[in-house]
Amino acid sequence: MFFHRQELQFKATPDQPDAVFARKLQELLGGQYGEITVALQYMFQGWNMHIPGKYRDLVFGIAAEEIGHVEMLATMIAQLLEKAPVGVTGKALQDDPTVAAIVGGMDVQHAIVAGAGARPVDSNGNPWQGSYITASGNLLADFTANANAEMQGRTQAARMYHMTDDHGVRDLLSFLIARDTMHQNQWAAAARELQEEGYELMPTPSNFPQSKEYQQVSYQYLNFSDGKTAAEGSWASGPSPDGKGEFTYHDGPTTTAPMPPPTHADSRFYGTTELPNSIEKTAGMVQDKLNKE
Amino acid sequence: MFFHRQELQFKATPDQPDAVFARKLQELLGGQYGEITVALQYMFQGWNMHIPGKYRDLVFGIAAEEIGHVEMLATMIAQLLEKAPVGVTGKALQDDPTVAAIVGGMDVQHAIVAGAGARPVDSNGNPWQGSYITASGNLLADFTANANAEMQGRTQAARMYHMTDDHGVRDLLSFLIARDTMHQNQWAAAARELQEEGYELMPTPSNFPQSKEYQQVSYQYLNFSDGKTAAEGSWASGPSPDGKGEFTYHDGPTTTAPMPPPTHADSRFYGTTELPNSIEKTAGMVQDKLNKE
Amino acid sequence: MFFHRQELQFKATPDQPDAVFARKLQELLGGQYGEITVALQYMFQGWNMHIPGKYRDLVFGIAAEEIGHVEMLATMIAQLLEKAPVGVTGKALQDDPTVAAIVGGMDVQHAIVAGAGARPVDSNGNPWQGSYITASGNLLADFTANANAEMQGRTQAARMYHMTDDHGVRDLLSFLIARDTMHQNQWAAAARELQEEGYELMPTPSNFPQSKEYQQVSYQYLNFSDGKTAAEGSWASGPSPDGKGEFTYHDGPTTTAPMPPPTHADSRFYGTTELPNSIEKTAGMVQDKLNKE
Amino acid sequence: MFFHRQELQFKATPDQPDAVFARKLQELLGGQYGEITVALQYMFQGWNMHIPGKYRDLVFGIAAEEIGHVEMLATMIAQLLEKAPVGVTGKALQDDPTVAAIVGGMDVQHAIVAGAGARPVDSNGNPWQGSYITASGNLLADFTANANAEMQGRTQAARMYHMTDDHGVRDLLSFLIARDTMHQNQWAAAARELQEEGYELMPTPSNFPQSKEYQQVSYQYLNFSDGKTAAEGSWASGPSPDGKGEFTYHDGPTTTAPMPPPTHADSRFYGTTELPNSIEKTAGMVQDKLNKE
Amino acid sequence: MFFHRQELQFKATPDQPDAVFARKLQELLGGQYGEITVALQYMFQGWNMHIPGKYRDLVFGIAAEEIGHVEMLATMIAQLLEKAPVGVTGKALQDDPTVAAIVGGMDVQHAIVAGAGARPVDSNGNPWQGSYITASGNLLADFTANANAEMQGRTQAARMYHMTDDHGVRDLLSFLIARDTMHQNQWAAAARELQEEGYELMPTPSNFPQSKEYQQVSYQYLNFSDGKTAAEGSWASGPSPDGKGEFTYHDGPTTTAPMPPPTHADSRFYGTTELPNSIEKTAGMVQDKLNKE
Amino acid sequence: MFFHRQELQFKATPDQPDAVFARKLQELLGGQYGEITVALQYMFQGWNMHIPGKYRDLVFGIAAEEIGHVEMLATMIAQLLEKAPVGVTGKALQDDPTVAAIVGGMDVQHAIVAGAGARPVDSNGNPWQGSYITASGNLLADFTANANAEMQGRTQAARMYHMTDDHGVRDLLSFLIARDTMHQNQWAAAARELQEEGYELMPTPSNFPQSKEYQQVSYQYLNFSDGKTAAEGSWASGPSPDGKGEFTYHDGPTTTAPMPPPTHADSRFYGTTELPNSIEKTAGMVQDKLNKE
Repeated sequence: MFFHRQELQFKATPDQPDAVFARKLQELLGGQYGEITVALQYMFQGWNMHIPGKYRDLVFGIAAEEIGHVEMLATMIAQLLEKAPVGVTGKALQDDPTVAAIVGGMDVQHAIVAGAGARPVDSNGNPWQGSYITASGNLLADFTANANAEMQGRTQAARMYHMTDDHGVRDLLSFLIARDTMHQNQWAAAARELQEEGYELMPTPSNFPQSKEYQQVSYQYLNFSDGKTAAEGSWASGPSPDGKGEFTYHDGPTTTAPMPPPTHADSRFYGTTELPNSIEKTAGMVQDKLNKE
Repeated sequence: MFFHRQELQFKATPDQPDAVFARKLQELLGGQYGEITVALQYMFQGWNMHIPGKYRDLVFGIAAEEIGHVEMLATMIAQLLEKAPVGVTGKALQDDPTVAAIVGGMDVQHAIVAGAGARPVDSNGNPWQGSYITASGNLLADFTANANAEMQGRTQAARMYHMTDDHGVRDLLSFLIARDTMHQNQWAAAARELQEEGYELMPTPSNFPQSKEYQQVSYQYLNFSDGKTAAEGSWASGPSPDGKGEFTYHDGPTTTAPMPPPTHADSRFYGTTELPNSIEKTAGMVQDKLNKE
Repeated sequence: MFFHRQELQFKATPDQPDAVFARKLQELLGGQYGEITVALQYMFQGWNMHIPGKYRDLVFGIAAEEIGHVEMLATMIAQLLEKAPVGVTGKALQDDPTVAAIVGGMDVQHAIVAGAGARPVDSNGNPWQGSYITASGNLLADFTANANAEMQGRTQAARMYHMTDDHGVRDLLSFLIARDTMHQNQWAAAARELQEEGYELMPTPSNFPQSKEYQQVSYQYLNFSDGKTAAEGSWASGPSPDGKGEFTYHDGPTTTAPMPPPTHADSRFYGTTELPNSIEKTAGMVQDKLNKE
Repeated sequence: MFFHRQELQFKATPDQPDAVFARKLQELLGGQYGEITVALQYMFQGWNMHIPGKYRDLVFGIAAEEIGHVEMLATMIAQLLEKAPVGVTGKALQDDPTVAAIVGGMDVQHAIVAGAGARPVDSNGNPWQGSYITASGNLLADFTANANAEMQGRTQAARMYHMTDDHGVRDLLSFLIARDTMHQNQWAAAARELQEEGYELMPTPSNFPQSKEYQQVSYQYLNFSDGKTAAEGSWASGPSPDGKGEFTYHDGPTTTAPMPPPTHADSRFYGTTELPNSIEKTAGMVQDKLNKE
Repeated sequence: MFFHRQELQFKATPDQPDAVFARKLQELLGGQYGEITVALQYMFQGWNMHIPGKYRDLVFGIAAEEIGHVEMLATMIAQLLEKAPVGVTGKALQDDPTVAAIVGGMDVQHAIVAGAGARPVDSNGNPWQGSYITASGNLLADFTANANAEMQGRTQAARMYHMTDDHGVRDLLSFLIARDTMHQNQWAAAARELQEEGYELMPTPSNFPQSKEYQQVSYQYLNFSDGKTAAEGSWASGPSPDGKGEFTYHDGPTTTAPMPPPTHADSRFYGTTELPNSIEKTAGMVQDKLNKE
Repeated sequence: MFFHRQELQFKATPDQPDAVFARKLQELLGGQYGEITVALQYMFQGWNMHIPGKYRDLVFGIAAEEIGHVEMLATMIAQLLEKAPVGVTGKALQDDPTVAAIVGGMDVQHAIVAGAGARPVDSNGNPWQGSYITASGNLLADFTANANAEMQGRTQAARMYHMTDDHGVRDLLSFLIARDTMHQNQWAAAARELQEEGYELMPTPSNFPQSKEYQQVSYQYLNFSDGKTAAEGSWASGPSPDGKGEFTYHDGPTTTAPMPPPTHADSRFYGTTELPNSIEKTAGMVQDKLNKE
């Protein structure tokens, strides 16, 4: 169960209207790595988790915080739009290049659809979608996904910090960036702890029987480009991070197989197939066969 | 530039037809973490990369291998469909519950749209989409995304290994799983190397000035659920993985702010606002104002 | 801010596994009118609302309840999948038509992607998307959207009630149906109250100046089909529900205008246009013009 | 069957080019609540309807009118683009901030893809999609959806009326707004008539047996936020609009249940589960089990 | 304007229920090349067309027919579902493998969402979307798109003809296939006529000045795969179909250029860049620079 | 298998930064008819092809070239963004209308998400999707799709040529336009050759038995609009292009059928049906029936 309190985790009020920045903030709210993504990702990980205890408490505890971040961003966006010249303006104003530029740079659905409110979309107006989230039931894989999400999110917030001078907006961003610092560290710690406690090791999933993978290529670097310097990396020689193998470097594949011959589906799929001896003859044969059905 | 060779990296021929498994394989080909995703993800990381050398050679080298994996899966899928009873069958057969079940379990577009061929979709028939990929220009973030993609992909392939007894299919899966073992290790090694060489440290992005984040909450575990055991994790006390902080644990937020008052957009957005003293009066006022424009 | 409590609003445990029904339940979780939709719809209405007080408290109060419904459904789905034969089974079992039928009827991503867990998708596997929700800032319009969402949701849940005999599942559905009864009534009451208090009247938005709409057709029923009985409805004669007009019935339009002539865009868009006197001549002209740039 | 007449229901010619407004008009053409939505929504309701007569004639009659509205908007958009400086212009012009702003504010696919023509997308360029429409077979639910669609559509058109001074555009909008006035009233009348004639009552669906819903919570207002004023609404006490219950107000849930224990899926899904006594031992066990298959 | 007549162009009644085939028919209704696609494609081509007369009359005349085809398919689908065992059945029946298989093979949203009615989706349940259509304003390009759409549609209908024995369904398919025969021929004729009349020639767009394309490679077959037989085709030697060039065959590219050096974006995008001499030093520099802003 | 060479097929370096044009170029990279589409379309056609030899070598040979075009465009886009004022700029600059206009006209995700890099999206930021491609197994249909793709692509590139004065960009476009010239010609030649060699004739699929289509309407032009001039085209009289029929012209349909009566689904779908004699009586009956289950 979830409960709502009509308070924010941090102040979220801009110094002044800015419809163009309101649009940009949508990325942090409803983008691939926005707050809706992490909120629902952590929730689904909790609902699909197979073990009780600290890891499940962890994902639930952060999931709820993240919906509150959606709320802070939506609140900020509505205020950035509140008094901005978002299209409903006198003619004179609209002819002003500055105003015109704002209309160009804003999300016009902020005005037309939401009446100067926030929307569940990214900064290009693409609706948020369920395929952004990851919850596989394998915790080492999922915590790595979480670490990535927090890294991408923090990078985006950091970029946007330099796209505004508004102190209110910068304050909110500095708060969100700090929480991303925490969450990056937390998922790194959780992924490390999972491994130290033996829940899961690399490569994930760790209890797929090694005998069943084609081990000849499990630690081979196979280079399909012509760049030569990939051979210099720690992925091309020396022990592998999982402690189970030794990297080797190869230019191109170490195994190949001929392409199997083209398939021939049932003729009633009407795919194009080998040329018969004569068209008329075949047409007749096909006709015969089909007329029987 | 890319060049194609009409050979496969590994044999990809099933023992027998299986339209239902063909559908499942689509997840590895065109799913969120399928081979189209990793192929294009690594390419875009290469095209957007700001440094020449081993890291760029690495992403290009693997990207090209991954398109070859798309090819192996598509080739396998076409063969699994080749002689399967995928709907174009005599009435008697269709009434057979086993055949009916196959039609139920298959991707019907394999038959109707592709004429017994592979499709750029996942196992539920959702078209592959560009929003699956990640290429931010920040390599530590992106290599973490890559590690996650290989972990999710290997987990899915491992699951599917147990969903078939076909030796040909299992052979292909065991090859792909081995390459996922390699690629997980490789991205882990690359992420470690990036940090050791000082290109990027945690938290990412590492050169966002620490003074600009709201440091009071950068290492606080804030628990928004009522599970008590999250306090026991290594994310709740002790030094943080980035080596820059000390975790603390708090039940709920350490900072709060009142929600700002509701916004009032321009009246010409026709949002619902406070009730005027009398409706008639206001209606008149609004009418007056609008008639003037 | 949102807080999570590790309890459910109602019991959500099935009598036995049923992967096919688990897939159907996804419609109530992640479909167009599923619980994610209403949860986020009510939240965005709250964040975009221009008036404090009972209407805003209403949307926040219900929004939080609805995320809890997402949680109950996800919890139920994971249990329905827990011991179901979802593909990872011995060969013998897979050849059993009943098992095959289950695999046909289930969401295969439940197994492959989520490892027997819930997903943010509908019953056809389409990812939930932000374009399902409605939050315009106009409360009469939005509360009507909410009433519709609860009506569609209750209809779907009622249908699904008859698709299972599992007592645990039916109990959960009977609880959700009861809450939909409440929420339908509540939005009807809220829409009525909005109008009684004068916040908004029909037609919405009610303060768009009537003088600015083309009033000749504001209360005309214009019939563009050849069914004659539409004339018998209360929408074809008598006073209109908004109390401002009198319906009239017309067979076909009462106004028409000629189509304007085709447009002629800049020739550099290379659209096909009128045939010149001679092709050669024009080609020369175009060439001349373009070569100058 | 549908027949086309090369006339419009109303004039649709702008005074002058305006590529930015052309983009905004796309919302009314191809947005969530645009004319394609209502046209197809009413058609599908007609095709899925279970009763002949006035209700079916009604949806068919309006559906056909609405495709004509798509046509008027497309015609207007093409004209707004006809002579607008949409990117194919001399360098000097492009350096003019006003022209640059137009390019920023326009839908660039209007130029690149459609050669100065209309597109089946919304004002952010999102393609129209079938998931916008509603046709459940339950007419009270569907007519409520229709009333909502007309309310949202009229609100958007009213907002856009104030975003232009072009008389031709305003004329078309004033016509569409008038038709939305009619259609709002019409769906309200039809919903009322359905109930008066006993086809369907609240709550919808009305013949789901009341005994099968969990009636204890059918009329309870359960407040999951901390706003206190929701208790003041007509949804918190007094008789419910469906005439079958009495509202009561409760702070938080009146029923709760413990979360069921985490699920344990088949181990071959490789989800993370409880820690075994010793990793080595389990690994061995798993290996044994798997090697047997 | 469009007018609806409550008649069908052809009978559309099945012999018996078949929920699985109802799902397959959705491909022809709402798939990439279904009837919604061609109806809207031809309409948008009409609205965006720059010349009056026979070509515009052609697209409008067929567009209206195609919406009627949507109607026939929707009508057929509703009837196929009418008495089919689509899930709402007694327990005994659901345990019957045949019934279970039907539920597996059907579109479950037909039951849950539409109450045994048609939906605006394809045979995998993907919603129809505006990005399926093509209307560029260039008629030779667009008529080629139309010819393709009719070819793909006829191929799909022909495949489905062999997936059923129902006479009513086969009758409808045989009618639709005949119309596809007509429409293929018609677009071929129209494309030929456009060229004969000089409106447009190959390559399209034909009046892009030849001097502005990089003519050295305009008629070169460049082979980027290792298949040798592509050299045998009429595309590898001899005159080109546009009558303006002579094909030549080349193994691989005839032109190459070095990749430009990696880009270096503004440091405030926090992309990973070249390693500085010492991390500490740089960190200090960046800090200095940023603190100034 | 695919191999990558770190070279481009043609130079791809702009004279100067231009973030707005970078966004436009995304259409050619990731749009409906962009290079990702043709690359994957040709690959899937190869993987699904049923005949070895020149046609398969052809699609593979071009597919690989087209990924190289994706690479050239991505490389160009990154350079156009490299030094452009894309939002991360001093306040003074952002107030400059020209800079503001650039921010309005650019793809803001270029900055926020990709850190000044290319993205797998179109010029409106819609992610590329698998439903853009066509690979049916029927080669005449598919080569027609390919011809269309190259025509649309060349038209778009030609339009964009006139939207820039940058010599580097124009050079790249002139190269791509020349390749589109080649590819249009090549698919036209291949489609012709397929027919000359008898693999496939019009109408496609050519071996669907003519006796099974409803031949009465196979060559009838049926006009559902009121434009009279469609009768003048070569599609309305004379021999049909497939050489098998004679076109005739008809105003409106030549066949009609009454709409079948409305369907009545199982009452447990709760669709609205005919009004019973009295509501109370029916409610009782339904209740009785349902209570028994």
